[in-house]
Amino acid sequence: MIFSSKLIEDAVEAFTRLPGIGKKTALRMVLHLLKEDKGMVRNFSETISKMREDICFCPDCNNISDGGPCAICKDPHRNKSIICVVENIRDVISIESTQQFNGLYHVLGGLLSPLDGIGPEQLQLSNLTSRIEKNEVSEIIMALSPNIEGDTTVYYIARQLQNRELTITGIARGVSFGGELEYTDELTLARSIAKRLPVETYVKTTSK
Amino acid sequence: MIFSSKLIEDAVEAFTRLPGIGKKTALRMVLHLLKEDKGMVRNFSETISKMREDICFCPDCNNISDGGPCAICKDPHRNKSIICVVENIRDVISIESTQQFNGLYHVLGGLLSPLDGIGPEQLQLSNLTSRIEKNEVSEIIMALSPNIEGDTTVYYIARQLQNRELTITGIARGVSFGGELEYTDELTLARSIAKRLPVETYVKTTSK
Repeated sequence: MIFSSKLIEDAVEAFTRLPGIGKKTALRMVLHLLKEDKGMVRNFSETISKMREDICFCPDCNNISDGGPCAICKDPHRNKSIICVVENIRDVISIESTQQFNGLYHVLGGLLSPLDGIGPEQLQLSNLTSRIEKNEVSEIIMALSPNIEGDTTVYYIARQLQNRELTITGIARGVSFGGELEYTDELTLARSIAKRLPVETYVKTTSK
Repeated sequence: MIFSSKLIEDAVEAFTRLPGIGKKTALRMVLHLLKEDKGMVRNFSETISKMREDICFCPDCNNISDGGPCAICKDPHRNKSIICVVENIRDVISIESTQQFNGLYHVLGGLLSPLDGIGPEQLQLSNLTSRIEKNEVSEIIMALSPNIEGDTTVYYIARQLQNRELTITGIARGVSFGGELEYTDELTLARSIAKRLPVETYVKTTSK
């Protein structure tokens, strides 16, 4: 693509560095911003810049924070005896958006993957143990991706914590709501039959 | 979506103001920028801001410019006797990218549309006439969209210029390269038959 302006070329180039943005989409964004008020565009770029400059990570759970402990760890209404272990910040946002979990989180920052050279030292594991001791945690919920790396990580953490008095649970796996049986993979379907629930609980859960 | 950080929420909100960006895509971009170096993000936002602050419009052709006349109008190798009339800046970029046109442009900034209240005063038409007189223009190419507004604009401009000694042409319409005949609309197909070319020219054009 040939732009007759260096300013436009640079701006398009900047946008293409974002994930999933090609040259055409970047140009569309730049031309949109060109039509906008100067103050709005200044405000846009300042918001992005400020976000990156000022963002911190919570010293307790490694979640993003606007400074010091994150909003979830600071919240006095949260149940501090349950910790949900997740891979990354995006998972925290997904679970928070369900509005069904009232405990705390622990962000690992990755999953164990010996093939990729990611061992326990690369993950934020050390402060998990200290949190468990400090806060009298009774349950750890493992909310990791259902793949080899996720299962390895669950197994490793469970072994690390095996001598403590706490329940370790994993999120339920099965056929998703709105999913059709015929399109569900065999592994998920087999497991959802093996781990079937009495219909009473089932109805209670779905109507919640 | 629930974010536990105001900084992230503001940044996601900023990205959703761009065209075609929903909350999920915006979050993906924000989390990508979070992983990037602080300097890179500062550079990104400064580029966008600078583009909007410093961009000018060419006093001759209304194209975008980094200051004063645009790069195309300034170029001494351009043929100043041909002017291609287009609707907007995006069209200039599209035609420039073909690298087949060596004349100058004239950006109208819109098309005549009496139903939407867009009359000749809303378009950048007045300086087109003065350019034609100043530069001894011999040909005006109308590269406007093939719809009612485009055709109305072509007709209006052609009438304004009818007493001058210059050729007014329109870009060729027909079946596009790689397009299959059976999927081409009737109007285009009918016109491409009516305006058929001798095979010699045809081959010359395609093998160019």
